[in-house]
Amino acid sequence: MTEQPGAGMKADIADQPEVFARLLDEGERVAQIAGVAAKIAEWRPRSVVFTARGTSDHAALYAAYLTEIRLGIPAGLASPSAMTVYGARPDLRDTLVVGVSQSGGSPDLHEVLRVAKEQGAHTLAVTNNPGSPLAGVAELHVDVAAGHEVAVAATKTYTAELLALLLLVESVRGGGALPAEEAAELRRLPGLAAELLADDTATHLAARYRFADRLVTTGRGYAYPTARETALKLMETSYVAGLAFSGADLLHGPLAMTQPDVPVLAVVGGGPAGTSMRDVVGRLSERRADVVVVGPEAVAGATAHIPTPAVDERYAPLLDILPLQRLALALALHRGENPDAPRGLKKVTTTL
Amino acid sequence: MTEQPGAGMKADIADQPEVFARLLDEGERVAQIAGVAAKIAEWRPRSVVFTARGTSDHAALYAAYLTEIRLGIPAGLASPSAMTVYGARPDLRDTLVVGVSQSGGSPDLHEVLRVAKEQGAHTLAVTNNPGSPLAGVAELHVDVAAGHEVAVAATKTYTAELLALLLLVESVRGGGALPAEEAAELRRLPGLAAELLADDTATHLAARYRFADRLVTTGRGYAYPTARETALKLMETSYVAGLAFSGADLLHGPLAMTQPDVPVLAVVGGGPAGTSMRDVVGRLSERRADVVVVGPEAVAGATAHIPTPAVDERYAPLLDILPLQRLALALALHRGENPDAPRGLKKVTTTL
Repeated sequence: MTEQPGAGMKADIADQPEVFARLLDEGERVAQIAGVAAKIAEWRPRSVVFTARGTSDHAALYAAYLTEIRLGIPAGLASPSAMTVYGARPDLRDTLVVGVSQSGGSPDLHEVLRVAKEQGAHTLAVTNNPGSPLAGVAELHVDVAAGHEVAVAATKTYTAELLALLLLVESVRGGGALPAEEAAELRRLPGLAAELLADDTATHLAARYRFADRLVTTGRGYAYPTARETALKLMETSYVAGLAFSGADLLHGPLAMTQPDVPVLAVVGGGPAGTSMRDVVGRLSERRADVVVVGPEAVAGATAHIPTPAVDERYAPLLDILPLQRLALALALHRGENPDAPRGLKKVTTTL
Repeated sequence: MTEQPGAGMKADIADQPEVFARLLDEGERVAQIAGVAAKIAEWRPRSVVFTARGTSDHAALYAAYLTEIRLGIPAGLASPSAMTVYGARPDLRDTLVVGVSQSGGSPDLHEVLRVAKEQGAHTLAVTNNPGSPLAGVAELHVDVAAGHEVAVAATKTYTAELLALLLLVESVRGGGALPAEEAAELRRLPGLAAELLADDTATHLAARYRFADRLVTTGRGYAYPTARETALKLMETSYVAGLAFSGADLLHGPLAMTQPDVPVLAVVGGGPAGTSMRDVVGRLSERRADVVVVGPEAVAGATAHIPTPAVDERYAPLLDILPLQRLALALALHRGENPDAPRGLKKVTTTL
C-alpha cells in the first residue's frame, strides 16, 4: 500500500495514456491480438457469449455491443451461476465464450470456460495476467498488459480491457489484421487521453457531491458501460449509492426516483446514442434533476459539463471514463476515505 | 385512478393467486402455450435472445436462466440499442428472439422483433395485450392474461409473465406439452400464493425502512431477478435508492458500500443458489449489515426473516416477490406516497 490515501489510484489513473500507447505500439501486443483475431475469423462463431464480474463485466458489455454492431454476430453476457450453481450444460458448438477478468483468478469464470470447452465452445480469456488460471484454461488468451494495478478499485485494467477488446473486434472485422485506417484513428488515443487527464473539470466538480447520498448515472449504447462503471467506481471508493440506468430504462420506472436533489451524471456522446440521450436529459431537467453531462458538447438543461473529446461513439468509452475515475477519486478524498483500500474489499474474489 | 392511495396496487397484488389459477386452469391458455411450445420444440433454436425493459426485463432474465438450465439452450438478454440506435444487423438464423412486455407497446422492442425477423430469427411476443403492436409483429404470441393492471407499478403482470414463461419452457422441454408431474406441482402455486399473501410479516417490516435512503437487494441464480425486481419496485413506489446485486457481484465491489446502516434484503432459496447465498449473508453480517432474509428458512446472522414456501428454486420467484411487493406498497404508504401514480411515470414508455 502507498502512504498517501488515493496515491495508488491516482498513479493507476495517470498511467492510462501509457497503457494505451503500449498496447498500440508494441509489435508483440498487436501481433498477439491479430493472431487471436485470425483464429476467431477462421472459426466464424455463430454467437459470442461473454462472462465477467464487476468492472470487467462492463468491459464485456462494451465488447458485446461491438460484436453485434461491428461483426454482426449476436452477443450476450452469461450468468455464470446457470452453469456453476445449477449445472446447466448448454450446447455451445459454434459459440465463442470469452472470459474477461483483470486477475484471471475468479474460480467461477474458470469453471464457465472449462464447461464451455466441454460443451463444444471455442474459448478465449482476456486478462491482465498471462499466468492466471483463466488464461490457462482457455484455448486463446489476450494479455491486456496494463501492468501492476496499485489500488483495489480497477481503473487502468478496465480501459486496457476496453482497448484490447476493441483491437480484437476490429482485427476480426479485418479478417485477422487491424485495418490501417483503424490503426491510425486508434493511435490518437494516448494523446487524447493525456490531454483529457490534464483537464481538472471533473475533479473540481467532486466537491458538489460531498454530501450526496446517491448518484444516478445514465448512458445508452456504447456509453451504457461507462455509466455502469462510474456507478460502481463511486460505490467502491466513496460509498455513494450509485444507480446506473440505460437512458431508455431510466424513463420506464426509476425516473420516479430522480427527485430534484438527486444528482445525475449523463454520458452524452456525439453519435446516435448521444442524440437519444439528449431527450433523456431534457426529461430529467423538466423534473429539475441536477444533471452533469459528460461528452463532447454541453446540453441544454444540464447544470454542468465535463468535456471529453469528440470521437466516434465506439472510441468514447476509452476516454469518457477517465474524468469520471478522477471524480470518484476526488470525491473519496473529500469524504476522508482511502480509495486505495476500500473497506471490506479484496482484489480477487473467490465466489464459485 | 382509485380514490385511496395504493388501493390499485393493493388490488393488483391481491389478484395474483387468481391470475395463477386462470393461467393454469383455463384449457384455452394451457393449449395456447402448448401450441407455441410445440412450434419452438420443432424449430429447435440454437440460441434464445430475450428483449425487454423494466419489470419485464426481470421476467426475461428468469426465462433466460430457465432456458439454459432446463433446455440446455444458450440464452441471453439483448440490448435493443445495438439494433435500434446503431443499426446492427446480426445473423439470427436458428435463433429465437423473444420480446417480453406487459403492454406490448414499446416501439423499441417492436423494432427489435421486426429486424430480428428480417435477419432470419423466429420471433415470439409475451405480453398482457394480444392486440398490441408487439404481439402483431411476432410470429407467435403468448398472452399472459393477467387482466387489467390498475397501478402504474407492475405486480401481477410480472408474476403472470414469470408463470407463462415457466409454462412455456417446461412445455418445450416436454416436446410441446406440459409434463403431468410438472402440471401437478404448478397447481399448488395459487394456494401457496394465497397463503403467503395472508402473512403480514413483510408489511410489518416496512416501518423499519421508513427513514432508509437506500436498500441493497441481493440473490443468485433464479432468485437474482427477484432481487432486481424488488429494487425497482422500491424505487418506483417509495423513491428509495434500490441497489440490486447478484450475491457473487456484491462480494466484488459494492460490498464496500454496505455500511452498518444500509439495510439488505437477501433472497435465500432452499436450493443450490440459496446455499451460496448463505455465505453472502455471513459476509454481510460480519460487516454488521442489517440483513432481512426472504426464503423458506431463517439464516444465522440475519436481523429478520420473511418466510416464503419451501419450493424448488425454479418456482420460488413466483412466490418470493409477493411479500416484497407488499413491502414496497406498505413502505410507500408509510412515506405518504401514492404508489398507484408514481411521480413522473407513465405506463407505456416510448423510447426508440
